[in-house]
Amino acid sequence: MRVLGIDCGTERTGYGIIDSDGRDHRLVTAGVIQAQSGLPLEERLLVIARGLRDVIRTHRPQAVAVEQVFHGANPKTALKLAHVRGAALLVAAEAGLEVGEYSALEVKTSVVGYGRAEKAQVQMMVASLVGLADPIASEDASDAVAVAICHATTGTMRKRMEAGR
Amino acid sequence: MRVLGIDCGTERTGYGIIDSDGRDHRLVTAGVIQAQSGLPLEERLLVIARGLRDVIRTHRPQAVAVEQVFHGANPKTALKLAHVRGAALLVAAEAGLEVGEYSALEVKTSVVGYGRAEKAQVQMMVASLVGLADPIASEDASDAVAVAICHATTGTMRKRMEAGR
Repeated sequence: MRVLGIDCGTERTGYGIIDSDGRDHRLVTAGVIQAQSGLPLEERLLVIARGLRDVIRTHRPQAVAVEQVFHGANPKTALKLAHVRGAALLVAAEAGLEVGEYSALEVKTSVVGYGRAEKAQVQMMVASLVGLADPIASEDASDAVAVAICHATTGTMRKRMEAGR
Repeated sequence: MRVLGIDCGTERTGYGIIDSDGRDHRLVTAGVIQAQSGLPLEERLLVIARGLRDVIRTHRPQAVAVEQVFHGANPKTALKLAHVRGAALLVAAEAGLEVGEYSALEVKTSVVGYGRAEKAQVQMMVASLVGLADPIASEDASDAVAVAICHATTGTMRKRMEAGR
């Protein structure tokens, strides 16, 4: 299964695509869509949507995975992020892709094995899981790969459980 | 100037288009895009985006006006709403339209003259301002027309002030 993970941000939106059988993962591509912070929100959304459409057109993923957003510490930031997620989810739906949403805890647990892992640990494990010697330079891209891994493993686990295996 | 006002909602998104010179307004069309509540969020965003694109294609507005979203009483609702706004703003940017954002207070003030007006009052004033004898039946559509009126009058006022008149 080819999964596109997206790490939404109002300035930098990370993306990462993996091929996975639910156990072994291979990195297809990863990067960051940069939207200038000076631009009005609607123009940043346009930059992000175009970037994601390019990635989807080029690499043809079958599913999209995104992290859930919570109001948490900074409600203003969460609201902005939700706008970006709205645009990203729209792009996914337009491409006819299955969408999975996961909490930060689920993502960390699927990558490192427990939810309280530190950022550097997550980056190292992500690289290792997709067969890279070094961490992916951009943290946003690495986080996007992490949520893609979470989708691939969680989905596979769910299917196995449902099949009673 | 032809302005499209949008009243974003996860189930019902109101829209209203007016022609306005900043003082006199005429209703072009108003309605509601209904997204089934049972659908996953990304599919609801798709329904809303398609509906808005149809309205823009048919009526060719020059500007889009939306109400600002605040975390306020229910952060979960505000977050959902922000997703819809993200999709709506993306559609506006794709169509190359100018976007104006206004607080609920600004909208009410521009329509009724003060910010604490009640819903029924706002609906009656909206109808009166666009030359209708009766209120627009749907509150969502009426609210969308209200934000369009706010954009038309605020923008015109700003230009007059900037021009020193």
